Amino acid sequence: MTQLHPETRTPVERGLARGARTPAAASTIDAALAEVESRLSGFFAARISSAAAYAPAYRTLWESARDAADGGKRIRPRFVLTAFRGLGGTDDDAACTAAVAYELLHTAFLLHDDVIDGDTMRRGRPNVVGAFASDATSRGVESVRARRWGEAGAILAGDLLLHAAASVLARVDADEWTRERLLEILDHGVFVTAAGELADVALAERMGPESPSLDDVLAMTEHKTAAYSVAGPLMTGALLAGGGEDLLAPLAEYGRLVGIAFQLGDDLLGVFGSEDVTGKSIVSDLRQGKETSLIAFARGTARWEDVTPSLGRSDLAPHEAARLASVLEECGARAFVERLLADHVDRAIALLQSPSIPASLSQPLTDVARSCIGRIA
Amino acid sequence: MTQLHPETRTPVERGLARGARTPAAASTIDAALAEVESRLSGFFAARISSAAAYAPAYRTLWESARDAADGGKRIRPRFVLTAFRGLGGTDDDAACTAAVAYELLHTAFLLHDDVIDGDTMRRGRPNVVGAFASDATSRGVESVRARRWGEAGAILAGDLLLHAAASVLARVDADEWTRERLLEILDHGVFVTAAGELADVALAERMGPESPSLDDVLAMTEHKTAAYSVAGPLMTGALLAGGGEDLLAPLAEYGRLVGIAFQLGDDLLGVFGSEDVTGKSIVSDLRQGKETSLIAFARGTARWEDVTPSLGRSDLAPHEAARLASVLEECGARAFVERLLADHVDRAIALLQSPSIPASLSQPLTDVARSCIGRIA
Repeated sequence: MTQLHPETRTPVERGLARGARTPAAASTIDAALAEVESRLSGFFAARISSAAAYAPAYRTLWESARDAADGGKRIRPRFVLTAFRGLGGTDDDAACTAAVAYELLHTAFLLHDDVIDGDTMRRGRPNVVGAFASDATSRGVESVRARRWGEAGAILAGDLLLHAAASVLARVDADEWTRERLLEILDHGVFVTAAGELADVALAERMGPESPSLDDVLAMTEHKTAAYSVAGPLMTGALLAGGGEDLLAPLAEYGRLVGIAFQLGDDLLGVFGSEDVTGKSIVSDLRQGKETSLIAFARGTARWEDVTPSLGRSDLAPHEAARLASVLEECGARAFVERLLADHVDRAIALLQSPSIPASLSQPLTDVARSCIGRIA
Repeated sequence: MTQLHPETRTPVERGLARGARTPAAASTIDAALAEVESRLSGFFAARISSAAAYAPAYRTLWESARDAADGGKRIRPRFVLTAFRGLGGTDDDAACTAAVAYELLHTAFLLHDDVIDGDTMRRGRPNVVGAFASDATSRGVESVRARRWGEAGAILAGDLLLHAAASVLARVDADEWTRERLLEILDHGVFVTAAGELADVALAERMGPESPSLDDVLAMTEHKTAAYSVAGPLMTGALLAGGGEDLLAPLAEYGRLVGIAFQLGDDLLGVFGSEDVTGKSIVSDLRQGKETSLIAFARGTARWEDVTPSLGRSDLAPHEAARLASVLEECGARAFVERLLADHVDRAIALLQSPSIPASLSQPLTDVARSCIGRIA
C-alpha cells in the first residue's frame, strides 16, 4: 500500500476546483473547506489540551494525530461539499460536520494502514510509528521496544480518530431519517474498507490465490478506497442537500468507477510516470512487487516469464526497472490498462447524464472524472 | 496487561446478580441480558453473512470477532442494566442498545490490547492474531508473514467493533439531549481508556519514569479500565432511566473507586491468590515484572533490593515466586494494598448514601463494592 506523493493527487483536486468554478461559486466551497480546516484544528486543539492533563506522552500522541491529519488534500471533504453545493445545499453547517468526520476516518485508516504495512514514513516525514519510535530510541530505548512503543501509539491514535469519525457524524444537525441514512453510509464505508484492506494484505503477503486475477486486484482497490473516499462522501453531501434515493445509486456507482479509474492511473504512473511530475520513484511499485492491474494483466501473457525474475527484487536497478516497464508495454499491459481507465471514466460520465442529476453537479463531477485521464496524458 | 481468567471476575458478577435480586426483579435483568446476547448474536450473524460476499478471509475475520466477544462476563452490560433498573427504568430497548455498544467497545479494546502486547492467546484459546497466524502457518506461510497477517486481522477486527460501538450508541432511541450526553460519556470513555492504555505500555516498556510511583500505577488502572467499564456504563444506564446530573457525579466517582478496588484485588490475587480459585498462575505477574500496586509500594521500602534480582525473570521458579511473595508480605506491601482496597470500597459505599441515589440502586452497587473485598478474603 504505497502512499501517493501529494503531487500525484493534484489533478483530482484541480478537477474538483475547476468544477466548483463553473456553477454556483468556488468561493463558497473554498469558504466551506476553510471552515472544515478550522473545525479540524479546533478538534485537535481541544484534545491536545485535555490530553496534557493525563501524561506528556498522551499529549504527544494527540499532536502526532493532528500532524497525521495535516497536509492531506481533503479529497473526501471536497466530495461531500461538491455534492452538497451541486445539489443546491446552502447551510453548510451539517455538510462541514460530515466532511470533518470523513477526514478523521481517512486519517484513522492511514494510521492503521501504516502499522499493518510496517511503514515508518508518510508524506515524506516520520509517521506516528516513526516519530514515537525515534523519540524512544533517542532516549536510549532499544530498537524492538521503541518500535513496539511506536506501533502502540499509532494503533491508539487511529482508534481515537476512528471513534471520533462516527461520534462526529452522529452529531450532524439533520432529521432522524437523514442521520440514520448517513450512519448507514458510514457503516458501509467502514465495512467495505476493512474488506479491501484485508484483501490488500492478503495480496501483499501472498495469503490469497496463487495468481491474483485482474478482478481480484480491481475489487481490492474498489473496496479499500472507492467506498469511503468517493461514494460515501458524495452520497453524504447529496443527502444533506435533500437529494433523494434516485440520486444515491448513480452517485455510488460513479464513485466506484472513478475510484477505480484513479487507482488505474496510479498503477500507470507508478511504472510509466515521470518522477518529476509524480514525485514518486518509478522503481518503487516494481521493487515492492505490488499487485497492480499491470501485473495482473501481464501474468496472463506470454511475456510473464520476462517479468517474474525481476519483480519484487528490493535491489532492482533503475535500468532493470526500465526493462520491466518495456515488457509491460510490449505485452499490452499498458494499453490494456489505459483502455480500462478510459472505459471507467466514460461509464462514470455517462452515469451523470441521469435526469436526477442537475448540471450543477454533473459538470464538476464530469471534470473530476476527466482529470483521471488528464493526469496520465 | 494480563487477561483475567474468567473465574477471577465471578465475584463482581455474583455481586451484581445478588444486588439485582433485592429490589425490582432479577428476572428482568436476566431477561434484558438475554436480549443483549441476542442482539450481539444478531449483530455478528448479519456481518458474517455480508462479509462472505467479499472474501472467505473476511468472513473468517468477522467470525473471529464474534468469538472474541464470546465468553465475556458482560460486566459492562450488567452495569448499564443495573443502573437503569435500579433507577426505575422499564422499557429496556434503549438500555439494551447501549449495553451492546459497551460490550462491542470492550471487545475492540481487547483485540487491540492483544496486538499491542504481542499476545496470541485470550481466555485460554488463540485470539484473532493467534488464529489467523496459525491458519497461515498451516498453509505454509513462514512465521513472520503469518504473524503480520494475524496482527492485520486483529487490528481490522478491532477497528470494525470500535466503529460499531459508536454507531450503535448513536442509534439509541432517546431524545436529542440524552443522546448527546450518552455520546459525550462514550467519547470520554474512549479518550480516557486510550490514555490509560498508553500509560500501561509506557510502564511495561519502561518508557515512563524510572521508578513509577503508586499514584502512577493507580492512575493507569483507573484510566485504562474504570472509565469505560464501570463509570461510563453506570452513567449511561442512569441517564436512560431519566436520572439527572445530581446522580451522575457520584456514579462516576463510585465507578472510579470500584474500578481501582477491583484492580487492587487483582494485584493481590496475582501474588497471594490460590491458583485453584483464580485460575491464574501466581508466578505470572512476577515473571512479567508487571508494575502493580504491590511492586510500586515495595519499591519505597528497605526490602526492595530483595525484590529486584528476581522480578521480571521469565524463568522464575515457583519456590522463588513464593519467596518474592514473602518479601512483599514482610515489607508491608500486602497489608498496605489490602487497606487501600478496603478504603476504596468504603469510600465507594459512602458515596451511595447520597440522597439522590435510591435504595434500589445503592443496594446492588453496595453489594458489588463489597464483592471486591469478598474475593480476596
